Amino acid sequence: MKINENFQNLKDSYLFSTIAKKTKGQDVIRLGIGDVTLPLAPSVITALNKAVLEMKDQATFKGYGEEQGYLFLRQAILDYYLEKEVTLTVDEIFVSDGAKSDLGNILDLFSADNTVLIPDPVYPVYVDTNLMAGRKIVYLDGNIDNNFLPLPDDGIKADIIYLCSPNNPTGAVYDKSGLKTWVDYALANDAVILFDSAYEIFVRDEELPTSIYQIDGAKKCAIEFCSLSKTAGFTGTRCGYTVVPRELNRGGFILNDLWLRRQTTKFNGVPYIVQRGAEAVFTSDGLKEIKANINRYRDNAETITKTLSQLGIWYTGGTNAPYIWLKCPGQMTSWEFFDYLLEKEGIVGTPGSGFGANGEGFFRLSAFGNKEDTIKAMEKFKKIF
Amino acid sequence: MKINENFQNLKDSYLFSTIAKKTKGQDVIRLGIGDVTLPLAPSVITALNKAVLEMKDQATFKGYGEEQGYLFLRQAILDYYLEKEVTLTVDEIFVSDGAKSDLGNILDLFSADNTVLIPDPVYPVYVDTNLMAGRKIVYLDGNIDNNFLPLPDDGIKADIIYLCSPNNPTGAVYDKSGLKTWVDYALANDAVILFDSAYEIFVRDEELPTSIYQIDGAKKCAIEFCSLSKTAGFTGTRCGYTVVPRELNRGGFILNDLWLRRQTTKFNGVPYIVQRGAEAVFTSDGLKEIKANINRYRDNAETITKTLSQLGIWYTGGTNAPYIWLKCPGQMTSWEFFDYLLEKEGIVGTPGSGFGANGEGFFRLSAFGNKEDTIKAMEKFKKIF
Repeated sequence: MKINENFQNLKDSYLFSTIAKKTKGQDVIRLGIGDVTLPLAPSVITALNKAVLEMKDQATFKGYGEEQGYLFLRQAILDYYLEKEVTLTVDEIFVSDGAKSDLGNILDLFSADNTVLIPDPVYPVYVDTNLMAGRKIVYLDGNIDNNFLPLPDDGIKADIIYLCSPNNPTGAVYDKSGLKTWVDYALANDAVILFDSAYEIFVRDEELPTSIYQIDGAKKCAIEFCSLSKTAGFTGTRCGYTVVPRELNRGGFILNDLWLRRQTTKFNGVPYIVQRGAEAVFTSDGLKEIKANINRYRDNAETITKTLSQLGIWYTGGTNAPYIWLKCPGQMTSWEFFDYLLEKEGIVGTPGSGFGANGEGFFRLSAFGNKEDTIKAMEKFKKIF
Repeated sequence: MKINENFQNLKDSYLFSTIAKKTKGQDVIRLGIGDVTLPLAPSVITALNKAVLEMKDQATFKGYGEEQGYLFLRQAILDYYLEKEVTLTVDEIFVSDGAKSDLGNILDLFSADNTVLIPDPVYPVYVDTNLMAGRKIVYLDGNIDNNFLPLPDDGIKADIIYLCSPNNPTGAVYDKSGLKTWVDYALANDAVILFDSAYEIFVRDEELPTSIYQIDGAKKCAIEFCSLSKTAGFTGTRCGYTVVPRELNRGGFILNDLWLRRQTTKFNGVPYIVQRGAEAVFTSDGLKEIKANINRYRDNAETITKTLSQLGIWYTGGTNAPYIWLKCPGQMTSWEFFDYLLEKEGIVGTPGSGFGANGEGFFRLSAFGNKEDTIKAMEKFKKIF
């Protein structure tokens, strides 16, 4: 019996457990979390209740559904894309239990013998899933000079490219020209872009893309992953979707066929009840309700960015994203700043160094906390800086 | 970009699509399905309703839970195992969205360079997931001589072994001595048994094992996968669990650590609402209710097995399993018998050849249909055989 030895290349991830240990039992203001705090929208609750009732009676009970997701939900997602001026077909949409699962599982489609290009700082899941599979990873520097929006380096030959926009952890958002540069690079290099659009709902600048398919050529080189986790507070309800265009083929394979085969073999679909809840998100009432929630998070983001601007602290994100990425004042390292904020003012954020080498000296604040806490934290910022 | 070329080794699976095509639009009696038909138990409905309400208010709303599953559910599963006289710890139990997902995903832990031993006939997922990963597969013959319960062949050196008992598709169940032979073989060969116990609730003979951990030594060589799909009608509600004992290690790795890392990296847990529904299954009311449903399926199985016995048709399964595996009368092939039954009497079953080479000449009937249909089908059997 041979174990997958690649597991030993994974670094232990101490980030959130260290934070938990340092703050245990303390009455602190938590602006570190990436989890939502507002409850599910009324339309979603109504749909969930109705679906539970259907499961009670033999006549309306639902057993196995399509692994790819019920048509009613895929149609609702298709309509949501139409409003972005992106035209899909229902067989290009796969309902999943969340973007994280699909971002990991999609790698089943690719040989271990590919080079992966990952911007740093980064959501650690992109790195760990590829380390597990033994793939070579090349990092691309995100920094103040490029506003944490690195563009491709023609000297690097990559096969699989991760992009997350609006970005976690930096909150930076590629404009159409930036994404077009990436699409052109991918097409020229026969590469596939794995595009994580989990935070697309936070974009309010109409010039910024909310789907990579708003860029010409993207359907020939990109898979897009999205989730209702942040869109509709589904972090504990679990539903997302992945788009694999029929036009996307590599090495003689249509990737949509491969993903369908992977999912029908290793997945049994999302709960019927949850799919009905997800469908309600995309109704006109549902969208109104979730946008009201998003606006509450945006208000928090604005409270933070206004304060940082006043204090002259460098930051990015926050305007079109729920994360604010700031440069630690006074040349502090990420963990020095973490300890300083915690000990001095009882505020908890996330040290940027937890997201990669380029995160050192930076710090992530989240807009998902509650309003009063966010205001209180920023008043404290004004006192100490 | 290199695609995972192993996908081209997968055979197209035409079994259920061919059945669907042949029966489309016809008014037939369906005894082919492996899906449940009875609705969720009242206790489960109550728990689901309560959980939906919790998601409505900020004070009780649940965001991200533990990837491994909420402690309340893992504790309930632990207690369920205690009744089988199997003692586990909560960190050995992983809540999942179903056995199929975990049976596929567990393979991330093992090198592609392992030999896999799979009994034939078999649930096709075991085969396809390993073909996708490029592993060498050795098949073990199930047949009338061994009652479709093959035992290990000491001449074969295998690293990963699949066992499903009660079996899909045959309904055959290993006794303790049979499983002990397998455990001894696995220990002697440094192999790991992937034990699929999805149908354990159907065992009524108290001498038969319902968990591989009822066998001495199994915690050192086996991972057990179970699901509420058949236990509690969760095929459309999606919840299962996998047990990875802390004692199980290979090549210097504790497999429980690897699986925890795999799941925290590539999975975000099961919906809170569903976990509350699953918890209710294991309450005393819940267990009473689901056992009443199981008894209704058992009645169907008995209707079938009694008829086959009267007619002198060879079969196995049905007594401790929801599937009845019969030899096609008159030397018919599986598909000849399928067509004969469909055209003559409008009865639909599943051709055994769809489950592997050793399934040729056999046929699977399911006890998950409704009572009236099952009785009517067996009356037709009596007329034609």
